[in-house]
Amino acid sequence: PGKKVLIVYAHQEPKSFNGSLLKIAVEELTKQGCSVTVSDLYAMQFEPRATRNDIVGHLHNSEAFNYGVETWEAYKRGALSKDLIEEQKKVQEADLLIFQFPLFWFNMPAILKGWMDRVLVQGFAYDLSKAYDGGLLQGKLSLFSFTTGGSKEKYATRGDIRYLLWPMQHGIMHFCGVKVLEPHICYAPENVSGEKRKEMLTAWTQRLKTLWKEEPIDCSPEWYFK
Amino acid sequence: PGKKVLIVYAHQEPKSFNGSLLKIAVEELTKQGCSVTVSDLYAMQFEPRATRNDIVGHLHNSEAFNYGVETWEAYKRGALSKDLIEEQKKVQEADLLIFQFPLFWFNMPAILKGWMDRVLVQGFAYDLSKAYDGGLLQGKLSLFSFTTGGSKEKYATRGDIRYLLWPMQHGIMHFCGVKVLEPHICYAPENVSGEKRKEMLTAWTQRLKTLWKEEPIDCSPEWYFK
Repeated sequence: PGKKVLIVYAHQEPKSFNGSLLKIAVEELTKQGCSVTVSDLYAMQFEPRATRNDIVGHLHNSEAFNYGVETWEAYKRGALSKDLIEEQKKVQEADLLIFQFPLFWFNMPAILKGWMDRVLVQGFAYDLSKAYDGGLLQGKLSLFSFTTGGSKEKYATRGDIRYLLWPMQHGIMHFCGVKVLEPHICYAPENVSGEKRKEMLTAWTQRLKTLWKEEPIDCSPEWYFK
Repeated sequence: PGKKVLIVYAHQEPKSFNGSLLKIAVEELTKQGCSVTVSDLYAMQFEPRATRNDIVGHLHNSEAFNYGVETWEAYKRGALSKDLIEEQKKVQEADLLIFQFPLFWFNMPAILKGWMDRVLVQGFAYDLSKAYDGGLLQGKLSLFSFTTGGSKEKYATRGDIRYLLWPMQHGIMHFCGVKVLEPHICYAPENVSGEKRKEMLTAWTQRLKTLWKEEPIDCSPEWYFK
């Protein structure tokens, strides 16, 4: 109760299964007394491209554009574009970040990857020697909640699903010092019975009820690749 | 000689190190007699967001928008948006796809992920039981060529760099039936001496000279995680 949650949501359709998972999270967490904010990326027409437009005013080096350097400098002088400052403020205030999306190509949809690329800039999320346990977003939790197209069995024939979590959980959240909770994966909701879909929604509600008692995963290579 | 190459390039600045790697590839491959096409994503202002705009005309199901279903249906009736049809034509004609980009968060920049999300639709790149060795883009080669911010040593302390190649090489290219050549990684070009940078550029030229004799990697989990 009193905890702040930011849900970054990347699905085009409110009536989708991802839309239902979002709705459940907002309702259940609000019921618990949490304050919930949603960044609905498609509805916001969130810009995924990392360009010069992200810096207001002059560039540090206008001879050769370097996105990492320019956004770092712009962050320091408060000259990032308005949409980025707003997202950073939401991240700053949150105790928990939930990412809700359909898996596209073993990964996040581009619009969500663009949120990571543009919002988590140097100086804000990490710094020169401030990464991993020293990352600037320490004290926060994160949870990747996603749906897949293929069945659990199909994924298992080609290796463990955890393999594809490494870049997002370890490479982004862990890098910024954010602790990672177990991912929440709904396999192939489009290809299962209505009853099975209902069970999956109930399971999400149930998990959220005890979420704050969960221990974060140990984000070592062994967790992913044992 | 006579081979067709598509380079999908994702950097904002022609004067960047990625820009130099692109230039080298175009020059060297052209010199070999290859026909080279470049998709310069930032210059094209390529759209990374997967939305309803990708379908021309009516939707298959306008009650609830499902991007995968809608693009599959649109592909079959030739109703994908013009930018996607053009990219698919380039892919169709290519013998080799080179992806040139700076690594952002253990992954492709969002603009390049958006190219994957939107161009490689069902029916074009894969189909119901046509994936992996049966993928629809069989007979093609691919190569991921990228720069990093961190040094080789820094990456090595947190696990093998190959871990992050799984979603892009296996999850995308291998899934579509495209063979994968060894990645080409230039570590931290911004933090090394001018001489070292020159060496890296020369190494890329050298590699391209014998590229067509290379054997694709064995895309099994063992290659990535042994």
